[in-house]
Amino acid sequence: MVSPLLAHAQAKPGAQYRDARAPLEERVNDLLKRMTLPEKVRQLDMYSSAREIMSMHTDDTHAALDAVFVPEKAQTLWGDLGVGAVHDLNPTPEQANAIQRWVISHNRLGIPALFIEEGLHGYDTGTVFPAPIGLAGTWDRDVARETGAAIASEARSHGVHMILGPVLDLARDPRWGRVEEDFGEDTYLTGQLGLAYVRGMQGDTLASDHTTIAEPKHFVGHGSPEGGQNTSPVHMGERELRTEMLAAFEPAFREGHAMSTMAAYHEIDGIPMTADPLVLKQILRGEWGFQGFVLSDLGAIRRLYEDHRVAPSPQAASCLAIRSGVDMQFYDFDHEVFQKALQDCVSSGSLPIKDLDRAVRGVLRVKFMLGLFDHPYVDPALMARTERAPAHLALSLRSARESMTLLKNENHLLPLAKTIQRIAVIGPNGNIARYGDYERETNGKRISILDGVKAEVPGASVTFDDGKDIASAVAAAKQADVVILGMGEWQGVEGEGFDRMNLDLPGNQEALLEAVAATGKPMVLILENGRPLTIGWAKQHIPVILEAWYPGEFGGQAIAETLFGDNNPAGHLTITFPKSTGQLPMYYSSDPSRVHKYVDDDGKPLFPFGWGLSYTTFHYDRLAAMPSKQGDNAEVHVTVDVTNDGSRDGDDVVQLYLRRDFSSVETPERELKGFLRVHLKAGETKTVSFELSPRDLQIWNAQQQWVVEPGSYTLWAGDSSLANLKATFILR
Amino acid sequence: MVSPLLAHAQAKPGAQYRDARAPLEERVNDLLKRMTLPEKVRQLDMYSSAREIMSMHTDDTHAALDAVFVPEKAQTLWGDLGVGAVHDLNPTPEQANAIQRWVISHNRLGIPALFIEEGLHGYDTGTVFPAPIGLAGTWDRDVARETGAAIASEARSHGVHMILGPVLDLARDPRWGRVEEDFGEDTYLTGQLGLAYVRGMQGDTLASDHTTIAEPKHFVGHGSPEGGQNTSPVHMGERELRTEMLAAFEPAFREGHAMSTMAAYHEIDGIPMTADPLVLKQILRGEWGFQGFVLSDLGAIRRLYEDHRVAPSPQAASCLAIRSGVDMQFYDFDHEVFQKALQDCVSSGSLPIKDLDRAVRGVLRVKFMLGLFDHPYVDPALMARTERAPAHLALSLRSARESMTLLKNENHLLPLAKTIQRIAVIGPNGNIARYGDYERETNGKRISILDGVKAEVPGASVTFDDGKDIASAVAAAKQADVVILGMGEWQGVEGEGFDRMNLDLPGNQEALLEAVAATGKPMVLILENGRPLTIGWAKQHIPVILEAWYPGEFGGQAIAETLFGDNNPAGHLTITFPKSTGQLPMYYSSDPSRVHKYVDDDGKPLFPFGWGLSYTTFHYDRLAAMPSKQGDNAEVHVTVDVTNDGSRDGDDVVQLYLRRDFSSVETPERELKGFLRVHLKAGETKTVSFELSPRDLQIWNAQQQWVVEPGSYTLWAGDSSLANLKATFILR
Repeated sequence: MVSPLLAHAQAKPGAQYRDARAPLEERVNDLLKRMTLPEKVRQLDMYSSAREIMSMHTDDTHAALDAVFVPEKAQTLWGDLGVGAVHDLNPTPEQANAIQRWVISHNRLGIPALFIEEGLHGYDTGTVFPAPIGLAGTWDRDVARETGAAIASEARSHGVHMILGPVLDLARDPRWGRVEEDFGEDTYLTGQLGLAYVRGMQGDTLASDHTTIAEPKHFVGHGSPEGGQNTSPVHMGERELRTEMLAAFEPAFREGHAMSTMAAYHEIDGIPMTADPLVLKQILRGEWGFQGFVLSDLGAIRRLYEDHRVAPSPQAASCLAIRSGVDMQFYDFDHEVFQKALQDCVSSGSLPIKDLDRAVRGVLRVKFMLGLFDHPYVDPALMARTERAPAHLALSLRSARESMTLLKNENHLLPLAKTIQRIAVIGPNGNIARYGDYERETNGKRISILDGVKAEVPGASVTFDDGKDIASAVAAAKQADVVILGMGEWQGVEGEGFDRMNLDLPGNQEALLEAVAATGKPMVLILENGRPLTIGWAKQHIPVILEAWYPGEFGGQAIAETLFGDNNPAGHLTITFPKSTGQLPMYYSSDPSRVHKYVDDDGKPLFPFGWGLSYTTFHYDRLAAMPSKQGDNAEVHVTVDVTNDGSRDGDDVVQLYLRRDFSSVETPERELKGFLRVHLKAGETKTVSFELSPRDLQIWNAQQQWVVEPGSYTLWAGDSSLANLKATFILR
Repeated sequence: MVSPLLAHAQAKPGAQYRDARAPLEERVNDLLKRMTLPEKVRQLDMYSSAREIMSMHTDDTHAALDAVFVPEKAQTLWGDLGVGAVHDLNPTPEQANAIQRWVISHNRLGIPALFIEEGLHGYDTGTVFPAPIGLAGTWDRDVARETGAAIASEARSHGVHMILGPVLDLARDPRWGRVEEDFGEDTYLTGQLGLAYVRGMQGDTLASDHTTIAEPKHFVGHGSPEGGQNTSPVHMGERELRTEMLAAFEPAFREGHAMSTMAAYHEIDGIPMTADPLVLKQILRGEWGFQGFVLSDLGAIRRLYEDHRVAPSPQAASCLAIRSGVDMQFYDFDHEVFQKALQDCVSSGSLPIKDLDRAVRGVLRVKFMLGLFDHPYVDPALMARTERAPAHLALSLRSARESMTLLKNENHLLPLAKTIQRIAVIGPNGNIARYGDYERETNGKRISILDGVKAEVPGASVTFDDGKDIASAVAAAKQADVVILGMGEWQGVEGEGFDRMNLDLPGNQEALLEAVAATGKPMVLILENGRPLTIGWAKQHIPVILEAWYPGEFGGQAIAETLFGDNNPAGHLTITFPKSTGQLPMYYSSDPSRVHKYVDDDGKPLFPFGWGLSYTTFHYDRLAAMPSKQGDNAEVHVTVDVTNDGSRDGDDVVQLYLRRDFSSVETPERELKGFLRVHLKAGETKTVSFELSPRDLQIWNAQQQWVVEPGSYTLWAGDSSLANLKATFILR
């Protein structure tokens, strides 16, 4: 029970932790030493709020816009020991301020609450950006950074301090429903885009009215679940974990200083992530110097007891998690169970106080860095200037345009002439803007393919058929000069918890595709989907395939501009398309001893990593590599010329792949180690430079050390993972 | 070059190593200290012989029956430094003796050669036994032991000392073409059958005219290749490797004292098996006390250079392998390259002499144990009494009968009445006895399904159609009272190097099945195949499915006896049948945090591990568990009553599954820990006992120690992995 005696017993105004000019660590330590054990554990808990403390809510995660904070509810539920974090509220600024004011005045030391919300590709009712898999398809660090910044600023304008993202899992299994939340399968690309995104979110300072804490997740290895089934065990050794999965997170923490992360649901080789001191303590904190706090994924600590069965009670699970490096629970257990468990474990000695203090320090440090002790409230006027600001909408459109990935364009059917008279848009994704998971499809401008095409060619006759009745769709196709098929996936067959055994186009779409194709009409297949699909039949029979992923609220516009040539596509795949689930796992950076054949197949992908066509063509030449330093500090300067040798201006994504010709442990056949999206006018040549650092060259050797090994190395440059322009260099 | 001066310079007859009464290790050490470096490395090499040293050969692996040994060829190719091993010869006893005589007299110390051959489920032209996956389906330790003994005795009667088997890989991916060589997916079952088989092969002594060295392979983890593609990388951590893959081998080495093993092709987490001192030195030798020799898989050392690229030259690869714990190459490099590399590396110090001596000791030890220094020749009269002896043929038939696995028997369609008049046998496996890989289909009695049915019901009219022409097959079906479909796989779609992306019935068989089923005739599907097939359509539409695997030369007889009730089937699956490749990996002993659902499927298998029906029924009752010891020496006595409550006599396979309710690392949802095939007369009850040992109960904990943890445990007993009769016990 919370003692009412503590209420309003504020520390003296002169306390060091209240001094905004005092060094951060001194403030943290000063505050920590004033706290009682019950106050400490309170900082490690998160409170669901829309239902609990507001006068009205629209659903579990949203207060009603005109709801008011009800102090009596808070007094009953929260009492006077403080609040670690507030979640599932999505507040107006006024609501956030009212809650924060109450929290600060209702704990002895005046510790503010941290407001945490979702915002995977847009904050609540703000701008809807392309899903992460689409954003990654731009291969554009600037777009990633600006997207992170835009989402953070919209959220912070509501009084929200932390967004649960970005997702830096490597998408190694397309059956997994969360592929769309990722930046693709590749370590380096994910690491670079993750870094840019975190830098955008966190800005130059967190004590700002437009930045939030970034929370790269799910730490770590979540993207390789057994069977492609979410939260299932992950099978890998420490080398693969370090050199691939952890390496994708490392830039976000070491260079981007992301101040939070989320411990994932799964286990690796028997050790659940919320009970793994190797990754949470030794690597994240010890090797990388992480100073923020580790949040449990929703219920991930509870899983220690209920699913992994490595803790025989909720109490044991709670203490095991904190001891292993988790700092805050996420609805794992009832607040009293969790908080009492930690206090009891500290008292009994089974949870060292230094682990508890580490956890509390992480939460407090973040609150200090956000300026919440000094400027706890948000300016209510800020939201109107920030949410859905024109620059954010323009960014969403830019991101959508840049993400358009042309997989096939037989006989240059695209771009279409704007003089086409009769267009039939067909398919379940033709007239609905598909956003993917973690977005409501009622948000934003919702520009569908149909909307986009109508706006792009206002003079044409554009019909729509959703394809549920295949005969009707065929009839519509027969009446058209060109058919635009809007197909793919939708919420309920994709997203978190929606893993698929079969990766064909879901529902009747394969049958619809075959029937419509039989009309022989010129035909374009637009895919809006969250994962690679086994579209082998389409690849063989449909002349044009445009992968649009989930392109955000302006998706239909970007698609239409691409179809009719106002946008020259330059998106490139960040994940391999297999022909069949029977080929899985399939990713380009497999080790050279992976065999690529079956008795019934050549074992090659349907579309390789890095793939993407343009309306112009590019030529690569003069790849050169010059080591400038040697040994464990090795650096290599790389240049390559890329020429637009077609007749249209366009972007290309220059990709640099590395192979260690021999190394003391087996390393991938090729690995992305540099990329740049460049714009080239028709006929223009640019020289693109890359600098390979020790981190790009090192391996985790059999003695469990990072080393750059002497020997010969091979580089390839080009615009897909099939790049064949080659150079070599030697490290001594 | 080999010096001719050394030829015939035999050691004195009184040398200690020549004294058959001297202790084994003293003989080994005495011989070793007399050997020069060139003589030592010669013991670590294997020589392909049919083509090289014989007057005639029938193919790469067989000397012609009337070929003679050509000393001039041997002198040129082998010289006078000795021969480690002779392979790919499949000699007559006379040929073996002639070669051995020459080898002994053409090296200074008179060291005999080791004769090594294949014999996966039968030695050369000897008795053809069911493939290992079928043998395992018997769940009969006696049959495994007797099969190992029979193959060894047939081989030894030819002068062969070592057989390349058994295969103890866990078949965790049905796409893999080598599933048929395994005893299935389970650790305990594979361990127990492997132990029985090794004990059969090696007998009470190796210095015998009817035993051979056993060589459990492929060490270790080979059955989980990425993508199901043979020799591809394996992704797992040390806990999974130790508690599942290594644990399957451990009984064969620690209790069975198998004297050889084969280092596998693949890498685990970047470390190729032929370069892995953890498994080859620390675990195999250090922890398990292995004293035999480790053979490279054919070309596995070469792969260090060519595929894994962890060694920059053949020389480096050769030395790395020996340094890591491999003892003999297998056609990896030219003899001179390999032998010179080892000598050079010893001279330069990069290969410690203790590693080289360990390798030589292993080979010599085995030769001493086999008695080759004392009785190097085989009695040529033995072969006629041994090869295809009546007892071996009877054993093959018994094994085939016991392996018959009835997956489905709707409305008790089986057993068929012998009064049936018209039978149509249809399908590509109907008139050919399928043997699977590592057997010539020209060997043995080759009793096909058609042969078996004709012999079983001589009064019936039995027609055959191979189904290539579906119309003709349908017509044949229409003329029949019952249709027997002989389907599955054959050499060329299964076996080593024949991995499949799609697991449906290959060729036109799915279409044939549907067309024949449409006749509505009573119908039985017999499968002869090497791996689980995704026979979802058949499960739904065909009333009877009998899994026969590759049942050996008497397979057709065993099948026919089963169809007509002279054999009551009691085979049980040792590998899970998935519905689709989209569910892989799928094995019953996955960890409890594995999710079993997809948005488009319930995630359940088509047929579970342990599954198998009978013509009678069994009832389980009174499962009880009583710990007799506690702590790290914990033992638990378990009993269960099984009753044949049907009206026919029959066998059942009693299966005992264990779960640790909570453990410090995540452990499987259930694991097989005991099994017994029992015969029960109609109405009979037997009480079956199991003793759980510390090895059954222990886990490899996070501190990398084997421990038996206190806590509650759950047991289930029954005749499949779905067993639901439950008991619990507590360990303190």
